[in-house]
Amino acid sequence: MVKDLPKIRRPLGLPDDAFEQRRPDKGQITKREVRAVSLYALGLRQDSVVWDIGAGTGSVSVEAALIANRGQVYSIERDTDSLPLLEANVARLGSENIHIVSGEAPGALEDLPSPDSVFVGGSGGNLSEIIEYAVSRLNPSGAIVVNLAVLERTQEAYRLLKSLGLATELTQITSSRGKEMPDGAVRLESLNPVFIVTGRRGN
Amino acid sequence: MVKDLPKIRRPLGLPDDAFEQRRPDKGQITKREVRAVSLYALGLRQDSVVWDIGAGTGSVSVEAALIANRGQVYSIERDTDSLPLLEANVARLGSENIHIVSGEAPGALEDLPSPDSVFVGGSGGNLSEIIEYAVSRLNPSGAIVVNLAVLERTQEAYRLLKSLGLATELTQITSSRGKEMPDGAVRLESLNPVFIVTGRRGN
Amino acid sequence: MVKDLPKIRRPLGLPDDAFEQRRPDKGQITKREVRAVSLYALGLRQDSVVWDIGAGTGSVSVEAALIANRGQVYSIERDTDSLPLLEANVARLGSENIHIVSGEAPGALEDLPSPDSVFVGGSGGNLSEIIEYAVSRLNPSGAIVVNLAVLERTQEAYRLLKSLGLATELTQITSSRGKEMPDGAVRLESLNPVFIVTGRRGN
Amino acid sequence: MVKDLPKIRRPLGLPDDAFEQRRPDKGQITKREVRAVSLYALGLRQDSVVWDIGAGTGSVSVEAALIANRGQVYSIERDTDSLPLLEANVARLGSENIHIVSGEAPGALEDLPSPDSVFVGGSGGNLSEIIEYAVSRLNPSGAIVVNLAVLERTQEAYRLLKSLGLATELTQITSSRGKEMPDGAVRLESLNPVFIVTGRRGN
Repeated sequence: MVKDLPKIRRPLGLPDDAFEQRRPDKGQITKREVRAVSLYALGLRQDSVVWDIGAGTGSVSVEAALIANRGQVYSIERDTDSLPLLEANVARLGSENIHIVSGEAPGALEDLPSPDSVFVGGSGGNLSEIIEYAVSRLNPSGAIVVNLAVLERTQEAYRLLKSLGLATELTQITSSRGKEMPDGAVRLESLNPVFIVTGRRGN
Repeated sequence: MVKDLPKIRRPLGLPDDAFEQRRPDKGQITKREVRAVSLYALGLRQDSVVWDIGAGTGSVSVEAALIANRGQVYSIERDTDSLPLLEANVARLGSENIHIVSGEAPGALEDLPSPDSVFVGGSGGNLSEIIEYAVSRLNPSGAIVVNLAVLERTQEAYRLLKSLGLATELTQITSSRGKEMPDGAVRLESLNPVFIVTGRRGN
Repeated sequence: MVKDLPKIRRPLGLPDDAFEQRRPDKGQITKREVRAVSLYALGLRQDSVVWDIGAGTGSVSVEAALIANRGQVYSIERDTDSLPLLEANVARLGSENIHIVSGEAPGALEDLPSPDSVFVGGSGGNLSEIIEYAVSRLNPSGAIVVNLAVLERTQEAYRLLKSLGLATELTQITSSRGKEMPDGAVRLESLNPVFIVTGRRGN
Repeated sequence: MVKDLPKIRRPLGLPDDAFEQRRPDKGQITKREVRAVSLYALGLRQDSVVWDIGAGTGSVSVEAALIANRGQVYSIERDTDSLPLLEANVARLGSENIHIVSGEAPGALEDLPSPDSVFVGGSGGNLSEIIEYAVSRLNPSGAIVVNLAVLERTQEAYRLLKSLGLATELTQITSSRGKEMPDGAVRLESLNPVFIVTGRRGN
């Protein structure tokens, strides 16, 4: 007997401005192009357990929950000031398989089911501890995807994932968006480059 | 009564080397980062009808079919030499909701159900005709996503989609991948930039 | 008998903020990295005649005049509101071999000596006429370098220079600058991409 | 009494293929765009003393010697197999103010006059020692410019220059060159990104 699954009532691929953002941190949201590449790198299955660590506006959580629509997404956020916005976005754009966890990683992760996919979008200085703990809990064939803006932490995340035995990759994404000028001509405006470090566990 | 859906047996997010490629065109595959951004721009729903025009190795089709797992994906390819590879990749990595269509767009599109999402990865010189026809058939709230390498065609696709009344966006994606050197240090190797032009129809 | 040459009293390579900028167009200055690549593409000799068309703040003129220190640099600017700033920058940072020409290209170019190197940084809509006229006057082995933000004009400039018989190249420059955060970590901030189209005349 | 200076008989701005390259390291040459930005960052004066450490093909040396045409350029190269190529390029494209120094930095730098501008294009593992020594000898208002491909060394060079009291900047350059296809359309091919770290000494 098959349970009636929630249909995807909205399409995958929300624009950045769909997510209410807290000021003055506006602009801190994972940008659409980076969100797309990060979601794709997570190796999501329909029944995946996902941890979104440093969930922020929830933009990764609500999209991961569409793809992993028989799975469970845990949105961990330590900044209590951000929680109302995260809750509002999940209520408006998310689905019932998203669970908001208020607390600081890695401590706040201990009671969660072991993940198949871990996204680290914000680390508040605990990057190494979070990665080490997440990897210790990562299911076979699971993936951890870290977004980084800082050169040094990028290198650190890469080395750490590799030293923990994961197949590790690094990608830098630079995207530019067309901006139409008054005469209809299109010029390009760059977004800041983001490093995406991915570690995959073998079977 | 709900039909038992095919589960996603493999994760979303295949690496480029999962797709057998024809020689000597190896390297023509839509690269992982661009595939991710393009898939995300397609605005896929679970029940979407998708046209993948110029399907090539099938890399976009097989991933779109995972997300639109109650929908239908039509993989149109005019190069008969490419068909065996496309068929093999769909058989190995795809799902039953993918339908290979041998023929040249736009003619080959006429008998297909109207699309919610159209990906144009290869256009063989018919770019304008393909876009015009696809837009004429595009369902409300549908999206058409075009990948382009050439400056001039990028501008042409952008203008055409706009003139046809779609909300049009242009993004250039430049990605670089970390390459590990013998001493473990990581340097960056660039992929060629790709332009992604997206047009969305209102409700 | 050798005339006493002006020494380079300041180094080549001024930062962007050396040039007073008019508001609200601040940010329109040719950025340092693009200025460097453009100057290098001009193929300057010590005795070059240089036209800087759409001189703006004069950032290209004052640097070209350092390298072509036995040559002559003509800084053409049609916007009379910009002239005081251009004059001030040339007086402060430039050398005596820079000549400001108030007027609109291509008309304002007619009385100037034929150029070895032409930089087009701003074209006010006359791009094709300016390029055609500049090429008609370009000395053997001369070069014309055009900076463009707009896709369509880039293609237009490339095709035009090529049709006029010049060896034509196109480069897109995307640069990101390190920005130090409060904790000393460095992240990258992108500048908008610029297209540089160069045409070179044979001997 | 002014000495008759060597005129610039060739223009500044050689293409990459002007420099004979050793195989199989072809491609290791500092690419034109990065050479331009690096030269510009060196803050060259007509009378500058320049050290080009890891001179390789000599592409930076011969261009720096054109700008610093009353100065002296020292081209240091430890790889004796590369010396014949360096010597040939300097003989063919360079000027009399270039001095080739065979040996390994920093040891080989001890007998050279103190530099105004230092370019580090190759470091063979001695990066920190080379930077420390170069900074210890750097004249007031001098600049040191380091080209790096590796993330980790980029961070290391940035931190070291900063800790030594220099005003430090980091730029990542990604350039793409237009490549014409058989039908005349132009697509973009990326060069690998390069990090340029610059330290400047105050007066």
